[in-house]
Amino acid sequence: MSDAIQITNPSPGIGDTPGFVASGVACDVRCNGNERLDLTLVYSKTPCTAAGVFTTNDVKAAPVVLDMEVLKSSAPIHGFVANSGNANACTGAQGMADAKEMIALAEQAAGAPAGSFFVCSTGRIGRVLPMTNLRKGIADAGLALEDSAAQSEKAAYAILTSDTKPKTVTTRFDWQGQTITVSGMGKGAGMIEPNMATMLAFVTTDAAVAKPLLQQVLSTANQTSFNQITVDGDMSTNDTVLLLANGVSGIEVTEDQAELLALFQQAVGIVCRKLAEKIVGDGERVTKFVRLYIKGAPSDQAAEKVARAIGNSLLVKTSWFGSDPNWGRLMDAAGYARVGLVEAKVDLHYNDVPALLQGTPQDDNLAQWKAIVANKEFSITLNLNVGEGAYELLSTDLSTGYVDFNKSE
Amino acid sequence: MSDAIQITNPSPGIGDTPGFVASGVACDVRCNGNERLDLTLVYSKTPCTAAGVFTTNDVKAAPVVLDMEVLKSSAPIHGFVANSGNANACTGAQGMADAKEMIALAEQAAGAPAGSFFVCSTGRIGRVLPMTNLRKGIADAGLALEDSAAQSEKAAYAILTSDTKPKTVTTRFDWQGQTITVSGMGKGAGMIEPNMATMLAFVTTDAAVAKPLLQQVLSTANQTSFNQITVDGDMSTNDTVLLLANGVSGIEVTEDQAELLALFQQAVGIVCRKLAEKIVGDGERVTKFVRLYIKGAPSDQAAEKVARAIGNSLLVKTSWFGSDPNWGRLMDAAGYARVGLVEAKVDLHYNDVPALLQGTPQDDNLAQWKAIVANKEFSITLNLNVGEGAYELLSTDLSTGYVDFNKSE
Repeated sequence: MSDAIQITNPSPGIGDTPGFVASGVACDVRCNGNERLDLTLVYSKTPCTAAGVFTTNDVKAAPVVLDMEVLKSSAPIHGFVANSGNANACTGAQGMADAKEMIALAEQAAGAPAGSFFVCSTGRIGRVLPMTNLRKGIADAGLALEDSAAQSEKAAYAILTSDTKPKTVTTRFDWQGQTITVSGMGKGAGMIEPNMATMLAFVTTDAAVAKPLLQQVLSTANQTSFNQITVDGDMSTNDTVLLLANGVSGIEVTEDQAELLALFQQAVGIVCRKLAEKIVGDGERVTKFVRLYIKGAPSDQAAEKVARAIGNSLLVKTSWFGSDPNWGRLMDAAGYARVGLVEAKVDLHYNDVPALLQGTPQDDNLAQWKAIVANKEFSITLNLNVGEGAYELLSTDLSTGYVDFNKSE
Repeated sequence: MSDAIQITNPSPGIGDTPGFVASGVACDVRCNGNERLDLTLVYSKTPCTAAGVFTTNDVKAAPVVLDMEVLKSSAPIHGFVANSGNANACTGAQGMADAKEMIALAEQAAGAPAGSFFVCSTGRIGRVLPMTNLRKGIADAGLALEDSAAQSEKAAYAILTSDTKPKTVTTRFDWQGQTITVSGMGKGAGMIEPNMATMLAFVTTDAAVAKPLLQQVLSTANQTSFNQITVDGDMSTNDTVLLLANGVSGIEVTEDQAELLALFQQAVGIVCRKLAEKIVGDGERVTKFVRLYIKGAPSDQAAEKVARAIGNSLLVKTSWFGSDPNWGRLMDAAGYARVGLVEAKVDLHYNDVPALLQGTPQDDNLAQWKAIVANKEFSITLNLNVGEGAYELLSTDLSTGYVDFNKSE
């Protein structure tokens, strides 16, 4: 990681970027009388270019479908509105009408032109939005918009569902006497699996970046962040990552300036990666954070298959929950990925301690594996020793708390 | 189902087939001083033809590798030995030597020629077998072999691991004044996912069937039984289904006799299906048994993908555990199977009660869905209405008990 990038983690959040104002208010999206923050508004007076990545689920929530259209249009972007507590997914024509109304109301509340906002929703699937509450909430959020750490932090709270804490990070780097800022916020917790998650993440920057390049930077950052995490293997209907660039720093990032582009890519990469790590670390009732490194696979794709087989195996995840270094289950999962694993070639390490070398158990180290797996955070490296393919996946255990928490909603 | 087939369910088990004797003894494979039954021996004095299906995991336990060789040889088969409590998987050269010794000892104990036995193991992965205990156990089992319901039932007990009860079934049908018997026993409980499971099943018949035809009959039966179940999505290193035919009924099943072959196929199919259902119903800490019917998919393969996405979704399974008819999670899982689901075309039923029609929630029926999902057993039918593909999968909920049970071993 370059010293040129300064990281504030956690940070005041998305409003940390010059030119962006934010707010977070409570409007009872859950219709349970609770006063928790559940509506976020973010606005840049200066028009932005935008990039986005979205769930690849066949079932896309109305806001996702709409945002993909907004992104396709050539209109300048000024911000987004997001609610937690209701996903506006599987809500048919009514859901689409509601998502459109949310955009129109948010644009009005912020004083932005039509067609310049995105909308995101997260929460329970299959319920129509309580639009009376949302209308009031969006109006309130418009009045609350300000350039303050306090409102930016509220914005980060208002997108949370089963998360236990807000997730924010800011990076800054200097270029020709100017500072460029990239800041972000995210939410996760359940339905967390590659190709994103029930996951929303929003990143803002004051660099000026043309739309195609901005999309390229975000897609690249996404590959090594939000696409490398899993909590429960369930991909959501609402996954969205948005990156907005308003250019108020006066610095333009272009492909011609390789050094600046590399720094910018790195800054966006760090923001996405830190948010992804926070999402995994705050997975529903998670007690372990496991970095899985797969090496020596026939290809990177094969390594990813092995990583996901292990990282999503119920038996592996429950053994982690019990602090049991049950490498047998891990080998079983690696084997059913069916990428051509040869048992007698496999090396397996917990942190730096070998558990298997060339397929042979290193039973003398048992006490050490046990001690490692008892920690809240550890790594597992599986080297298939048959090729050059590699993949890294951030995973978690599966706890009784997860099941208990999700048995009803 | 034809009336011509008489079903005894449960039955005395595998020894119910004329000409097969069985025994089950305790030899402390788990090395914990416990006296539970853990070694099974089954023997037919009359030589048998045999058929088998095995795990497709890259990591195959030593007994699986060995059985695949036995099956390839042209030697007549006389029986098998099986232990629970230790999978003899990931045990390298020692594991292979031990598996070979188990076969040789079992042949000796039963008085059978060399090269005529199979061996199966199930239990913890990565531990070397306690051969001192097994040597004594196999000798004891040889002495205990007899043609009795009592020993046949003990044999069915001795293959169990985390199962709570033995799984047996017998079918009989008449042909030209003779009775043909097909009987079986199985074990399951954890690591249960298609392409079988941590699952052993043994089926015997007194029909005479040439080896290629016997294999065809077993493979066909397997497709609509053991390959259609899931508990936790973890495919094991040890999955094995064996079918032994000793011909003592004097009736030969051939391809030329279409009616007889159909009856025999049906009988083997019923035995496999009943055993598969018992395995799902007795999954680790399972509280729900769910029949998933996927229809109207672009192809049967696509329907299977959707069924497995739903049947293995943690969020769907935990909602079943909580008796919550959370069809949103179900739609989410169906969507990430990515087979071309169109939300506005989907019909979804709990038993016969519609939850979605053409993608529109039938909220008036909410009380009825809730009542259905509160039952121990129910069906869910998802019609994508885009093609003719169909698939059926037997699945279960995921309970806090499962996680608690598997957090250490």
